[in-house]
Amino acid sequence: MPHSIETAAGKAAGEYACPGFQAAGIAAGIKKDGSDDFGLIYSERPCAAAAVFTRNRVRAAPVQLCARLLKTRQCQAVVVNAGNANCCTGEQGMTDAAATARQAARLLELPPSAVWVGSTGVIGQYLPMDRIAAGLPSLVSSLRPDGFTDFADAIRTTDLVPKLARRTGKAGQTAYTLLGAAKGSGMIRPDMATMLCYVVTDADIPAADLQTALGRSVDRSFNRITVDGDTSTNDTVHLMANGVSGAMVRSPEDLAAFQELLDDLLLDLARKVVLDGEGATKFVEIRVEGAATDADARRIADTVADSPLVKTAFFGQDANWGRIIGAVGRAGVALDPDRIDIAFNDIFICKNGQYAGPEAEAAAAGILKSPAFVTLIRTGDGPGSGFCLTCDFSLEYVKINADYRS
Amino acid sequence: MPHSIETAAGKAAGEYACPGFQAAGIAAGIKKDGSDDFGLIYSERPCAAAAVFTRNRVRAAPVQLCARLLKTRQCQAVVVNAGNANCCTGEQGMTDAAATARQAARLLELPPSAVWVGSTGVIGQYLPMDRIAAGLPSLVSSLRPDGFTDFADAIRTTDLVPKLARRTGKAGQTAYTLLGAAKGSGMIRPDMATMLCYVVTDADIPAADLQTALGRSVDRSFNRITVDGDTSTNDTVHLMANGVSGAMVRSPEDLAAFQELLDDLLLDLARKVVLDGEGATKFVEIRVEGAATDADARRIADTVADSPLVKTAFFGQDANWGRIIGAVGRAGVALDPDRIDIAFNDIFICKNGQYAGPEAEAAAAGILKSPAFVTLIRTGDGPGSGFCLTCDFSLEYVKINADYRS
Repeated sequence: MPHSIETAAGKAAGEYACPGFQAAGIAAGIKKDGSDDFGLIYSERPCAAAAVFTRNRVRAAPVQLCARLLKTRQCQAVVVNAGNANCCTGEQGMTDAAATARQAARLLELPPSAVWVGSTGVIGQYLPMDRIAAGLPSLVSSLRPDGFTDFADAIRTTDLVPKLARRTGKAGQTAYTLLGAAKGSGMIRPDMATMLCYVVTDADIPAADLQTALGRSVDRSFNRITVDGDTSTNDTVHLMANGVSGAMVRSPEDLAAFQELLDDLLLDLARKVVLDGEGATKFVEIRVEGAATDADARRIADTVADSPLVKTAFFGQDANWGRIIGAVGRAGVALDPDRIDIAFNDIFICKNGQYAGPEAEAAAAGILKSPAFVTLIRTGDGPGSGFCLTCDFSLEYVKINADYRS
Repeated sequence: MPHSIETAAGKAAGEYACPGFQAAGIAAGIKKDGSDDFGLIYSERPCAAAAVFTRNRVRAAPVQLCARLLKTRQCQAVVVNAGNANCCTGEQGMTDAAATARQAARLLELPPSAVWVGSTGVIGQYLPMDRIAAGLPSLVSSLRPDGFTDFADAIRTTDLVPKLARRTGKAGQTAYTLLGAAKGSGMIRPDMATMLCYVVTDADIPAADLQTALGRSVDRSFNRITVDGDTSTNDTVHLMANGVSGAMVRSPEDLAAFQELLDDLLLDLARKVVLDGEGATKFVEIRVEGAATDADARRIADTVADSPLVKTAFFGQDANWGRIIGAVGRAGVALDPDRIDIAFNDIFICKNGQYAGPEAEAAAAGILKSPAFVTLIRTGDGPGSGFCLTCDFSLEYVKINADYRS
């Protein structure tokens, strides 16, 4: 990886804690390689709950179960396994998801509907319920306030690093914490929260406001990233608020501050997903300005960010603006090609739809060698702008995905 | 390449001829590597002309020029260069395209508007007009009836093989020929004729009927293929009918027969483009049946055919139906996941949305090892069906496209 990602190991584990919550992660034998694959988050108090799920029409059993539970707007624990998506598993899959929740609830002394579930991994295989059942007692007994690093580690699949982020805010004079753990590396595109992400807070905030805030933040973070344009059947962003801090988030100002903090936290986690994109050697922000509308700008950014030809050029450290303008042209947005400017960081390689010359090319070539840069596309002087975070398409991406199941 | 593609070299060159037409291909120094890069097709008589162009909003100068010339519905020659797309070249590009046509017209003793032009290659550089001018006399003097193999060779960029196809039909008792040459290997997706293709016929058919037939055939052939989902700024399918055979295509029956022949010819060339897809080791037909409408079926086929995760699984010879069903689910089509069946050739690996078991898996694994197979997706019992031809996503694709400009 090109970046020094702030990993869990890089911080004192205690930093990744949130009052009133405990977490754990263990190896339950669900993954073939024996690494950690079973995680749990538990709140000492019932939480207001919010969630956003994949828009894929094929939805895994845990997603279907949680979509039902979301109607209660309440949650006190969530059990997540990696290595098996529990997707395309029919009635058995639903039974297994419910059984996982029920067994965990019994051990945690909670009503079954207070325990949510999540799964990620290979599609089409039944959950190994013997290993789930055998692992749960040890998972529950491993719960501790600083267990979020273990949790983030246990929900990984092809992720190279666990992804955690933390923010603190205030409602009135009372401080509160936001803490999030995410997994995601492939099957990522800006069509929903294309991965798993669990966020906890000790703020006291009504469930309806929590849901509104989460929807907005996801749209500004996880919906703005892509690795390969594929979306998953298991995507979930889950937010739990236990109110332990006593910070009452109610006023428009406090709600706005909470929104800003949540936006910032999720964008941080979304960036970490792209930084850890399968095989990624480059982290690129595609920024579009001067479009007629924000929607147009976003569509252009998404099209460029998903183009295999653009992404392989990034991998080749090639300032190939011709492929970028080609992708802009097929985005389905009305525009004047003769007004398009393209820059890498501050170097314009294309002005008014034409090549800016060898001097710009030489400068751009230097920028393309760096592990992270901005690709700016100006399509005119309209008010619309947008962005998408993407990575390159490397030999390693193909290797990872040609060999994934074997 | 996995297939024994029927290359020009595999046939007597005379087979690729069409009465009243001559063609040529030479090296004019436009490509860096010194290989053939300049082609010409000439008809002894004025031709009815039809053409279909890229839908990309960024259109190369030759596309803009030909779109104007199409209004005349007439054409007698076409000059095509590889190695330089003459795209994003502004006024200079338009001047250069027109100058190329004018210089060729002078040598061929034709009015300038009778000569069309085409370009393919790197975007954003001016045509080397000195080399174009220096090459034209030699190109014209190389014209001969069996010169289509040289032409097909000269319009290649990353194509490994030249692509030619020929069909013969009858109008009444009079025989006629259809002969086509195509180039295309990357930047291919089913959103128009995503490559260059030149088709000639000695049939006598009105220009308006020619245009209608071409539009239909493109929709059934070049619009049904993908390599990487990127579309080009220079795509053109060009059809010239000189009437030399005396075969008058006028009656509904003769028009229908011509349509069928043209469909077959273009589908053959489109298949050859996918077979020669950049880095391709697999040729896969994605066939969708039982959808609500043909449009739904096509959308599903296109989404699966362009999925990087599906394509890398094909490269890995992995019968990973989970990625296929995941792509089906994000196609934006209403469907019942529990009714989805997926087969490789005749082996159903997924039935009613669930895994068909290890026996099917073993059989499917064998099929995935072959260089060509069908992936069948049934989404219900609706009347809609459709297909898309695709290839896998290999290490070689990334290598080719990371290094293309260097």
